[in-house]
Amino acid sequence: MRLARVSKDGKTGLAAEVDGTTKVVWDDGLADLDTQIATGKLSAAGTAAQAGEAVDDASLTFLPPLSNPPKIICLGLNYRDHAEEAGLGIPDFPVLFGRFASSLIGHDAPIILPKVSEQLDWEAELAVVLSKGGKNIAESAALEHVAAYSVFNDASIRDYQLRSPQWTAGKNFDDTGAFGPWLVTPDEVPAGAAGLKIECRVNGEVMQSSNTGNLIFTVANTIHLLSTFMTLEAGDVIVMGTPGGVGVARDPQIWMKDGDTCEVEIEGIGLLSNPIVAE
Amino acid sequence: MRLARVSKDGKTGLAAEVDGTTKVVWDDGLADLDTQIATGKLSAAGTAAQAGEAVDDASLTFLPPLSNPPKIICLGLNYRDHAEEAGLGIPDFPVLFGRFASSLIGHDAPIILPKVSEQLDWEAELAVVLSKGGKNIAESAALEHVAAYSVFNDASIRDYQLRSPQWTAGKNFDDTGAFGPWLVTPDEVPAGAAGLKIECRVNGEVMQSSNTGNLIFTVANTIHLLSTFMTLEAGDVIVMGTPGGVGVARDPQIWMKDGDTCEVEIEGIGLLSNPIVAE
Repeated sequence: MRLARVSKDGKTGLAAEVDGTTKVVWDDGLADLDTQIATGKLSAAGTAAQAGEAVDDASLTFLPPLSNPPKIICLGLNYRDHAEEAGLGIPDFPVLFGRFASSLIGHDAPIILPKVSEQLDWEAELAVVLSKGGKNIAESAALEHVAAYSVFNDASIRDYQLRSPQWTAGKNFDDTGAFGPWLVTPDEVPAGAAGLKIECRVNGEVMQSSNTGNLIFTVANTIHLLSTFMTLEAGDVIVMGTPGGVGVARDPQIWMKDGDTCEVEIEGIGLLSNPIVAE
Repeated sequence: MRLARVSKDGKTGLAAEVDGTTKVVWDDGLADLDTQIATGKLSAAGTAAQAGEAVDDASLTFLPPLSNPPKIICLGLNYRDHAEEAGLGIPDFPVLFGRFASSLIGHDAPIILPKVSEQLDWEAELAVVLSKGGKNIAESAALEHVAAYSVFNDASIRDYQLRSPQWTAGKNFDDTGAFGPWLVTPDEVPAGAAGLKIECRVNGEVMQSSNTGNLIFTVANTIHLLSTFMTLEAGDVIVMGTPGGVGVARDPQIWMKDGDTCEVEIEGIGLLSNPIVAE
């Protein structure tokens, strides 16, 4: 099942992609995926959306699939080549930081290059949305806690990220956490969304190209490890980290600028495209 | 106005301290301070609570004042003596990390020493709750955005905090973010809650003793700086950092253990006490 939260002419709806056609039911409550997931009703909501009206994607605004997750837990340095280019060593435990929901935007919404920095960088990532929470979840059972996968661009303001020992500021600028367009249920992809090509392109030029099979901490392993110290909840979003090829690690460094288009694509999950617009 | 979210015999209520007496109105909706603050009704809710029944504090369970803030933004290294003992230099911009609401507990609730670590440390902190949000808030107007102050114990699992370049894991163990008992409105304390004695005691022994006047980034300055890059929201909690004297920086190091009691007290705001219980 492929589901999205969309709007058009002031209405909000739940969209489902059926055989390449987008069907929509215009209903704020149905489209509230935070609540649908929290109450275990994602599948029923999706079935309802599949019976909706056919709508041209180009007429829709895609919203972030979730607007207020209990947690947005991001992993850093979770691909070997990125850990190496960052010069920070291969982690033996997930490197974690938080994003706040105030930074989220949807597909096609502008990523804002802020006035205070020129160092806007891309990060192609797999997002995992939990269907149910728990503590001390066994790795062997962890994938039963996944509601859906999605695509994330963990766009980063590098000078703010690196001006302090903690990355939080540079990871939480408004309009930098691009998420969507589709939530894709686990039955549509290989177990743990492993083995999928992941790519980032800026103005069509490939900047990152890897495979989700290269994750150091897999989806199942990450859910297990996080749950050893904190209670996970339905609706939590885990953003799995980015492969090598970011702009800050290049010589010369490359930053995104006003007028650029940044695309993140994960095979079988979707294409997330965002224009870059200067504040 | 001094307000708290309390429970007793399965009921939830809003408490107000009036001339040393705690008055309670038993009403789930009134006690939902997340919503009262989000809708700008904290003052009216407080007035209602002040007309409640007198209740002995000892019969009450104090809940975290907010259960689901939009953000819990924590500052690190925000007292000079703590930045020095951590060996990380004096920051020129707030050092930020996020706490998730899943880590919050109230006054008198046990801080859990987890099975996986022995390194449970204290951190006495001032908490600031926002009444209204905004972007690019001028420092001169920032204190108009404060709904209330409170007390926070940013209890930290040091080996998990320091095993990775990011502190998030060690700051997000379940049952480590002690918060409360009272929300205290700004009219009760000096501007920006400055000039107040802040102390942490373990089993009565003073471990940290400083003054909120020693904050490197003041409350007003912090609200301003955060709002330069992210949209702040009503109900956001800012946890202002801890002074020198933490256990990890001592020689020999000191950790809290099962059976200890940890108290954090801020002059004019309140006393937050939590027993330490092994998992």
